[in-house]
Amino acid sequence: MTDSALQGLIEALRVLPGVGAKSAQRMAYHLLQHDRAGAAQLARALERAADGVGHCQRCHTFSEAALCALCADETRDAAQLCVVETPADQAALERTGSYRGCYYVLMGRISPLDGQGPRQIGVESLLARASDGVVREVILATNFTAEGEATAHVLTQALTARGLLVTRLARGVPAGSELEYVDLSTIAHALVARR
Amino acid sequence: MTDSALQGLIEALRVLPGVGAKSAQRMAYHLLQHDRAGAAQLARALERAADGVGHCQRCHTFSEAALCALCADETRDAAQLCVVETPADQAALERTGSYRGCYYVLMGRISPLDGQGPRQIGVESLLARASDGVVREVILATNFTAEGEATAHVLTQALTARGLLVTRLARGVPAGSELEYVDLSTIAHALVARR
Repeated sequence: MTDSALQGLIEALRVLPGVGAKSAQRMAYHLLQHDRAGAAQLARALERAADGVGHCQRCHTFSEAALCALCADETRDAAQLCVVETPADQAALERTGSYRGCYYVLMGRISPLDGQGPRQIGVESLLARASDGVVREVILATNFTAEGEATAHVLTQALTARGLLVTRLARGVPAGSELEYVDLSTIAHALVARR
Repeated sequence: MTDSALQGLIEALRVLPGVGAKSAQRMAYHLLQHDRAGAAQLARALERAADGVGHCQRCHTFSEAALCALCADETRDAAQLCVVETPADQAALERTGSYRGCYYVLMGRISPLDGQGPRQIGVESLLARASDGVVREVILATNFTAEGEATAHVLTQALTARGLLVTRLARGVPAGSELEYVDLSTIAHALVARR
């Protein structure tokens, strides 16, 4: 009833995060029944990205060129360096349109349980980047999760030891939210950091 | 911060059903960061399936060969023909291990709102298949949804007009369920069809 090319496709689709056996089957049937051109296009895009996309030398985000578009952009403020965990976080910051400095993308976070220590996330490389004599402020924008906070803590210690100004994104009540539904820890932080 | 191969991959991933902008981004980052070999493998599987997988001449399911493995299997009972909507439904029936006849896969269902009438799901072709002189019973195993029921109704009329014996999967209380939580329509059907 099924054959090897179809089974192979169903198996291969399971490399995608969040895709189990059922979803993979549904995706394979959908592509074969309704969108073979899309499947062929996806195959080309995967090949091109897997072969062509590397990491930016300066900020470590994904890039086809040695320097990513943002690092190559000379209108960005080289005195500010914002440290994020992932390219997705960087994209979220860029969408705000309110930051004009440079980035450093850790491509991970400190997570001892997963074997991710300071060495694995390249703290040395960040220290070298931040000590270029131009960067004056390092803005830590790791996530406000346990692991992101631990990462920020370790980075703060390493960076301040080098005499760099280190700041962290403000914690507080999210825009548009009602106090009644905001968690206690956030309100406590907002109260302490009131201005 | 992003470049065209990465953007192209994110766009291309959206051909997958149920994958929006956010999931596509997450998938692309995951593949590039953690599983480039898997991405390359997926590219090859997509290409192979898009080029190689066609439809079985007899039952219309996906197949690389002219006849699918099931239609080519001479130990199957050619006197029984089970009609299902999709290869996934066929796979579900096969997993029960309790059917040894042949299949006909509609690759769709009658759905006037989507422009799917009897012609689009190939009723003529099913009639030709069922009138081969060997098929004695046609088992309608379309889904028990409004569209599946409508499809079964249309097929019943067309097939009985040709003098074929037409049966439908039994409706009733699912195995392992408690009556208290079964919907009324199912209980009513089970009561009428009691044995």
